[in-house]
Amino acid sequence: MRNNKQHTIFLKIRNCLFGGKEGPLVIFLFLLQGILERLESGEVVVGDGGFLVTLEKRGYVKAGLWTPEVVVEHPDAVGQLHMEFLRAGANVMQTFTFSASEEKLESKWKDVNATACDLAREVADKGDALVAGGICQTAIYKQDADEARVKRLFRLQVEVFARKNVDFLIAEYFEHAEEAVWAVEVLKESGKPVAATMCIGPEGDKNDVTPGECAVKLVKAGASIVGVNCRFGPGISLKTMKLMKEGLQAAGLKAHLMVQSLGFHTPDCGKGGFVDLPEYPFGLEPRTATRWDIQKYAREAYNLGVRFIGGCCGFEPYHIRAIAEELAPERGFWPPASDKHGIWGSGLNMHTKPWIRARARREYWENLLPASGRPFCPSLSKPDS
Amino acid sequence: MRNNKQHTIFLKIRNCLFGGKEGPLVIFLFLLQGILERLESGEVVVGDGGFLVTLEKRGYVKAGLWTPEVVVEHPDAVGQLHMEFLRAGANVMQTFTFSASEEKLESKWKDVNATACDLAREVADKGDALVAGGICQTAIYKQDADEARVKRLFRLQVEVFARKNVDFLIAEYFEHAEEAVWAVEVLKESGKPVAATMCIGPEGDKNDVTPGECAVKLVKAGASIVGVNCRFGPGISLKTMKLMKEGLQAAGLKAHLMVQSLGFHTPDCGKGGFVDLPEYPFGLEPRTATRWDIQKYAREAYNLGVRFIGGCCGFEPYHIRAIAEELAPERGFWPPASDKHGIWGSGLNMHTKPWIRARARREYWENLLPASGRPFCPSLSKPDS
Amino acid sequence: MRNNKQHTIFLKIRNCLFGGKEGPLVIFLFLLQGILERLESGEVVVGDGGFLVTLEKRGYVKAGLWTPEVVVEHPDAVGQLHMEFLRAGANVMQTFTFSASEEKLESKWKDVNATACDLAREVADKGDALVAGGICQTAIYKQDADEARVKRLFRLQVEVFARKNVDFLIAEYFEHAEEAVWAVEVLKESGKPVAATMCIGPEGDKNDVTPGECAVKLVKAGASIVGVNCRFGPGISLKTMKLMKEGLQAAGLKAHLMVQSLGFHTPDCGKGGFVDLPEYPFGLEPRTATRWDIQKYAREAYNLGVRFIGGCCGFEPYHIRAIAEELAPERGFWPPASDKHGIWGSGLNMHTKPWIRARARREYWENLLPASGRPFCPSLSKPDS
Amino acid sequence: MRNNKQHTIFLKIRNCLFGGKEGPLVIFLFLLQGILERLESGEVVVGDGGFLVTLEKRGYVKAGLWTPEVVVEHPDAVGQLHMEFLRAGANVMQTFTFSASEEKLESKWKDVNATACDLAREVADKGDALVAGGICQTAIYKQDADEARVKRLFRLQVEVFARKNVDFLIAEYFEHAEEAVWAVEVLKESGKPVAATMCIGPEGDKNDVTPGECAVKLVKAGASIVGVNCRFGPGISLKTMKLMKEGLQAAGLKAHLMVQSLGFHTPDCGKGGFVDLPEYPFGLEPRTATRWDIQKYAREAYNLGVRFIGGCCGFEPYHIRAIAEELAPERGFWPPASDKHGIWGSGLNMHTKPWIRARARREYWENLLPASGRPFCPSLSKPDS
Repeated sequence: MRNNKQHTIFLKIRNCLFGGKEGPLVIFLFLLQGILERLESGEVVVGDGGFLVTLEKRGYVKAGLWTPEVVVEHPDAVGQLHMEFLRAGANVMQTFTFSASEEKLESKWKDVNATACDLAREVADKGDALVAGGICQTAIYKQDADEARVKRLFRLQVEVFARKNVDFLIAEYFEHAEEAVWAVEVLKESGKPVAATMCIGPEGDKNDVTPGECAVKLVKAGASIVGVNCRFGPGISLKTMKLMKEGLQAAGLKAHLMVQSLGFHTPDCGKGGFVDLPEYPFGLEPRTATRWDIQKYAREAYNLGVRFIGGCCGFEPYHIRAIAEELAPERGFWPPASDKHGIWGSGLNMHTKPWIRARARREYWENLLPASGRPFCPSLSKPDS
Repeated sequence: MRNNKQHTIFLKIRNCLFGGKEGPLVIFLFLLQGILERLESGEVVVGDGGFLVTLEKRGYVKAGLWTPEVVVEHPDAVGQLHMEFLRAGANVMQTFTFSASEEKLESKWKDVNATACDLAREVADKGDALVAGGICQTAIYKQDADEARVKRLFRLQVEVFARKNVDFLIAEYFEHAEEAVWAVEVLKESGKPVAATMCIGPEGDKNDVTPGECAVKLVKAGASIVGVNCRFGPGISLKTMKLMKEGLQAAGLKAHLMVQSLGFHTPDCGKGGFVDLPEYPFGLEPRTATRWDIQKYAREAYNLGVRFIGGCCGFEPYHIRAIAEELAPERGFWPPASDKHGIWGSGLNMHTKPWIRARARREYWENLLPASGRPFCPSLSKPDS
Repeated sequence: MRNNKQHTIFLKIRNCLFGGKEGPLVIFLFLLQGILERLESGEVVVGDGGFLVTLEKRGYVKAGLWTPEVVVEHPDAVGQLHMEFLRAGANVMQTFTFSASEEKLESKWKDVNATACDLAREVADKGDALVAGGICQTAIYKQDADEARVKRLFRLQVEVFARKNVDFLIAEYFEHAEEAVWAVEVLKESGKPVAATMCIGPEGDKNDVTPGECAVKLVKAGASIVGVNCRFGPGISLKTMKLMKEGLQAAGLKAHLMVQSLGFHTPDCGKGGFVDLPEYPFGLEPRTATRWDIQKYAREAYNLGVRFIGGCCGFEPYHIRAIAEELAPERGFWPPASDKHGIWGSGLNMHTKPWIRARARREYWENLLPASGRPFCPSLSKPDS
Repeated sequence: MRNNKQHTIFLKIRNCLFGGKEGPLVIFLFLLQGILERLESGEVVVGDGGFLVTLEKRGYVKAGLWTPEVVVEHPDAVGQLHMEFLRAGANVMQTFTFSASEEKLESKWKDVNATACDLAREVADKGDALVAGGICQTAIYKQDADEARVKRLFRLQVEVFARKNVDFLIAEYFEHAEEAVWAVEVLKESGKPVAATMCIGPEGDKNDVTPGECAVKLVKAGASIVGVNCRFGPGISLKTMKLMKEGLQAAGLKAHLMVQSLGFHTPDCGKGGFVDLPEYPFGLEPRTATRWDIQKYAREAYNLGVRFIGGCCGFEPYHIRAIAEELAPERGFWPPASDKHGIWGSGLNMHTKPWIRARARREYWENLLPASGRPFCPSLSKPDS
């Protein structure tokens, strides 16, 4: 699907990212492959991180609404974040179209979707990345679960994605397996590969459909890639992935696995995930994962057989880089942003203070138990619901 | 010093920031004033946040070296961050020239300093902000404290700042009062207003010069604005400011006060500040201040008489916005990025879940004790030194 | 079995405990009943607390050996602790014969068992308490699981209990259902009622026999009362009890339920319980339950249908009193030691400081989240195994 | 003052405590010496622990009132606790006469004081311990600070102590230096050595008299031994002691130093000490010091020059033993209760589980950071006042 790309593009990339030096040739080969070819050949695909929360902190997205009108209001800010994820090693640029349906954005929806595709494509073409058009759950499903109305909303967005010729599609952030299945059905109409991730934890969806059953339903509906995104931190998300994997195995089904967890630790979440924690959304800072936490997550995801590994809310560019660095041996190359990073803290080995130099090693950071600096605060919270 | 600005600039700003609507007229008045006029008239000046740590997380700065070559390598990324701080309400764009001396950057130093001035000015001119050229402590001071060599390094940078006509100068991040005094002396040669901040805590500088004595020395050397930046979190930085203020009062001296603390909580720091904490620099996440912590910091700084209030490492755009929002009643206007923020969580008041709607109020966030999500981690660490 | 007691005993008790005032007549009725009559009539039976850990802190038991030779060396110290538990409301005086087998105590074993019975009886006769002879798991079972040798050890102890005419027998602290069944079989030979508790958590015994299966095996072997003791804190012990109850229900079996948890919080335990936590046994202090934690435990145990509620290691007299106070409405009377306790902190209502008077209420203590006073320590530990 | 003791007493002790073996001869020499002789010869005197809080947990003292009528109601329980402290290594048996003035106990006061002396003496005579009569601050001082009335109350208690021929006197738990001075003046009338301890922290007494000034006033009033007791944990109490020592040195005065801190960690206390913490008095458990914390306290106290080292509320017998064990090299002998304790966990070295055997060493316990087991609780609290 990307065979229209010419060698000139490759040279442009190489110049842009590696300053004219001989960049890894492997990139060139990647350029020819779509998402399924990559996954089927055993490659690790690195997803991107969270746009809503990151751009909220940069002053462009309003918490509570969580809608992506920044795409048309400040396209540079969105493009910059895409670029940071690309440099960090992401192979996928998701269009920033979360909640960008007619339902939420009214007349602006079409513009936002189209511009989001352009922004993603522009950056993707500067590196080895595919563009994925994304849709998510609707409010009207919760109101009356009217299949026709819900599918109509999805279809409108997909028409834009088709016109903009994105590389594949993602249905993400679904709390109900039923609605996710509808989404997959609509996405399949496009003829493009479909990934589907639910925002559930090990307890399953809102109707108590288990993770294993959810995965089975999604695959039967036509998804080639299934998994979870958002709502839960790295540890819990991987527990859910394990259950999805086991569910598929038990059903004798095959699919690629995908995980895009929160960049926040949430061992205390209930079924509803982090939105029910009292810290959501303006007091989550102490829960932010370190780069080392994310390296651990990437390794554990890989060991579980997950090959599409990215992040969601709370994942900043350096978290994506941590995935790319942890799995550099498997992928065969380092991401561009590693030029500005000494793996396992090695950049500290020239520090004038010996006790800081002593931190330039893997054992140090792997075993560090970072303090919160907040002695009046607890370690865990009780969810509000 | 900005009287060369025309009304067309104002209109351009208004269009850019406020979409053609009648923006606050007060901005127009600000455009005519330099840093000292502002402070002397009692205005609150909001500084910007941290470039090194923020751009490290975005993949552009290498921890350990902490040098700003990104200024020439990826000017867009730097310009974007300036823009975010401007939108957040900052009145000062500091040139990203930290450690950008010949000592650290060799032949690149001149280019970096000049380009940094251009980037800062370009954004400053889009809003109500002044450009401040910044210099910091040197390595050679620690080696042999050779006044001539140290001053020569400072002078080279100041020549660029003078040529680029920055609005004022900041000597920042000094651990030794003596070196800070030398810096102020060099900066004074430019004829521009001089601010000077040390990276010390309540215990004083490396030679046990107390904060009060440091402030006195800096003012006597010619600084119009004195204070602290970096190395310590909000609470401790304000303790140091209190001591500086008392020192100046006892000496019968007058100066404007300035604080740019870390965006991390560090109640457990020793004299050396956060670099000695075991979490520095790759495990500081749990210490990150919330926006509410920063509103508290802004209010307390204001109550102490500090009128130049900004941030350093760990301060992201939303932290600067928190200063601007807390002091909006005093300043008379809201920053542009508040369009994307409901003060005290008010943006949550339309949420479908009642327990999340219940968080849309000041009392909630002011009293929240956010959990770390890390039950195996302590609250405090013991500094390595 | 206690019908040989005369009214003079009752009067003696009333004088001793209530200072001649009209004590609750209900005690009189209790005196006539054995453990099964009590439980079958729906009474709440309050067990006693931990002897080993409490007497270790008093200087009479050696940690590591954990053997009860204090019974013969310092009988007054043991009698005093029995008396404290009696005053706290315990209905059962367990003979302090934990590990008091020939295997551990060699020639001293017989003396210890006999004296322990006398000490327990002496105090029990001063109040409304039964004497329970207790045996626990052996080391030789783990070595070769030789049924004959293990049962011989048990039988020796039971012979002493029979001679001393204890009121009923408890097989406690078993990690293996098989050995616990052997114990029950030996105890049944005495003709006395038999209770059996295992030191397991929700994951079951060392051979992965689930709690439900353990309960079924014990009841089938002849135990009238089953449950858990030691190794896990209040919360986890009740989870295990729930599983035991469900196991019995599923098997259509009936038995009385009994719980004697640790007085320490152990949410972080693995299968082996608190001995595997790094704090065991000399750093458990921060985990000590408050009296309010124990009231919650007593209420939850009661709601689950458990009617024999006591404690194990870490349960001091005031913890037993907390059970008796929480369930005073159900039992119909307060324990003697409540004369020295204002329920829910009411004794503070005369304090001269108003903020301390404000603590004299249930809501305060029920909702208090007590600080550890240890900011360098974590909330949870990782078990060593 | 104890020269009326005969060799038969020594033999009796030796038999009782050491089972007829050749006990340390050094005890014999101690028997001849009073408190001042001991301190002047450089001996370490080990105080006893907390009666109120310990006996509250045993069911004999009512929190809120905190009065010692248990002395007459249940003398055995008090004698038992004295005995435990003696076995733990205490050289001083304080009469349990805290708040036992006419003001608090009305007609019972005389009986309580006399019986408390008898109980202390009876146990002291079984070992190498002196009896100290203790008085504490009054409520009427706070009401009108009437010197005559306050001194009358003190004098009544001292008359009993004189009659019972205690070995020395302690004025303890004073918040006001003025009242403490009055107490010392009354105690001096007896002709016996006088110790005086205030319940203050580094911020000084309620009238802002600094610790140094307090110490000076007490010594000038006639106290031979000065220091602090109660209200603050080990760390803070030693900070106060340092200030007292410096105050005495600056004034050119000499006195013996004495510390009897809480057995709770209170780094978060304000000036009023632990009573102002929200956990006081029924939620202090997580703050309880381990034996290792107390060994550290004993060593630091010794290094500071304090030679009378004991405890107050929260100090149980094993805490006193920890002082005696830490300072056994200096004292030349181990306390009797060390027969039931392997120093630094050595009693674990026979455990069947290798990971528990691995805990049988000093480095392990010295470096252990014990978890609270309470992830929903903070590390520190804010005092109520």
